[in-house]
Amino acid sequence: MNIGIVGLGLMGGSIAKAVKKYGIAKNVYGYVNKEETKKEVLELKLVDEIVDLETLKKVSDVIILAIPVDAIIGMFPQLMDISKETTIIDMGSTKEFIVNNIPSQIRENFIAAHPMTGTEKSGPKAAIDELYEGKTVVLCNLEKNENNHVNRAFRIFQSIGMRIVVMDAVEHDIHACFMSHLPHAISFSLANTVMNHEDAKSIIALAAGGFKDMSRIAKSSPQMWSDIFGQNKKNLLHSIDLFMNHMNLVKELVEKDDHENLKKWMEKANSLHEIL
Amino acid sequence: MNIGIVGLGLMGGSIAKAVKKYGIAKNVYGYVNKEETKKEVLELKLVDEIVDLETLKKVSDVIILAIPVDAIIGMFPQLMDISKETTIIDMGSTKEFIVNNIPSQIRENFIAAHPMTGTEKSGPKAAIDELYEGKTVVLCNLEKNENNHVNRAFRIFQSIGMRIVVMDAVEHDIHACFMSHLPHAISFSLANTVMNHEDAKSIIALAAGGFKDMSRIAKSSPQMWSDIFGQNKKNLLHSIDLFMNHMNLVKELVEKDDHENLKKWMEKANSLHEIL
Repeated sequence: MNIGIVGLGLMGGSIAKAVKKYGIAKNVYGYVNKEETKKEVLELKLVDEIVDLETLKKVSDVIILAIPVDAIIGMFPQLMDISKETTIIDMGSTKEFIVNNIPSQIRENFIAAHPMTGTEKSGPKAAIDELYEGKTVVLCNLEKNENNHVNRAFRIFQSIGMRIVVMDAVEHDIHACFMSHLPHAISFSLANTVMNHEDAKSIIALAAGGFKDMSRIAKSSPQMWSDIFGQNKKNLLHSIDLFMNHMNLVKELVEKDDHENLKKWMEKANSLHEIL
Repeated sequence: MNIGIVGLGLMGGSIAKAVKKYGIAKNVYGYVNKEETKKEVLELKLVDEIVDLETLKKVSDVIILAIPVDAIIGMFPQLMDISKETTIIDMGSTKEFIVNNIPSQIRENFIAAHPMTGTEKSGPKAAIDELYEGKTVVLCNLEKNENNHVNRAFRIFQSIGMRIVVMDAVEHDIHACFMSHLPHAISFSLANTVMNHEDAKSIIALAAGGFKDMSRIAKSSPQMWSDIFGQNKKNLLHSIDLFMNHMNLVKELVEKDDHENLKKWMEKANSLHEIL
């Protein structure tokens, strides 16, 4: 089959590399907006050909949308006239707002997917062929899709080594919030706290594994993440409150020198060890 | 020289392995409290001999305290009669409270050190010989020490591949708070939030790199960390407030759909990239 990819940054570039590596696609076409990105994509040979959107729509059996979640919504009008035979897969990190807004004309061929993977890097140069291997992809509300399109999505994600999990979009957004969106809000906050109160010299001298791990995802793309925070607003605000309750609790226990309950609270956190 | 190590968990066991690996010590002696730990240490052959504390004090040229920070304070009375020729090095993660309480009898031979390394694991089995390689060790208030002891400490830490940074204890505790103690409080809080609101099945299915990194240090030892939080209380409470200001800010920006300022705030966090 021919695969067309819209957006060739970390996610799109990596899927371009992966479908080539596993020989799933006959041809891989790319569509990108910015001239600068186009140049990089061509230099890196991420796709066989860069085409305009109308051409991409005609030549692709599967179109993968690897762009920020607000840009996915923004593309709907341009995708409405697509053939019923063409599979569209979006790879956005939020799902409820997207599935609620897919135009009825393309509802059966539009697969809502969220590959739970990434790095803190962005742009075509960040693309790596193994990004998806061994990782989970969540597919949402497949009961709305025609079987042929579901099968194609399964075939692509399985072939590049992913573990498929099927879930309702509402449920997905709650889980993705706890497991990914909240951690990003926390990491951005920690990085900003440290950048405001520590000088570069001390950060370089004293950053050990813990801080490096905790601040890594604070390097993630602001465009991508402000969109995600906006689309998963309700869950994110709620999870921030739940997290702040714990920050207030540790503050209170430390303030009161209540080491017994502090230890118990830490032991509860330790129990994550049994799961991960 | 003969090195005696008090406490043979992750930190003590790893330094025992490291000083052996680099041939720094003629003999390595160990002192541990718990019978269970003693058995493990012997099985793992972490030291040449397990001895009682009085023997350790007599046979060691250098005694390394690799125990929780409150236990370090608790040991002072037993160390007061030690020979002026014996170097004592503590490896606690807080320094101000420790240096303020070192008995005058052993002040010149007591080196306050903080090796900025670790893993989320604890106990003798967690010991690895490369734990210290390429990492930073902070040595505090060396002007209080006799040169011979400073030189020994330098020799040991350099030989096991560490980068030495010299700093005042008060300054150390501020930096260590931002770079290590606050991140631990945050990671424990995130882990507890997720453990309270997500089931094991979803955590296993959906945990990707970001969450795994952010929750890794939440597996750290409660005994060790409740002590650290207690001894660095003032700085920790202050840094939690500063961090919470950022959590409140991201909450406010998301609530107001202020994507422009949200992006700017994320870009500031991104700038950590230029340093780390």
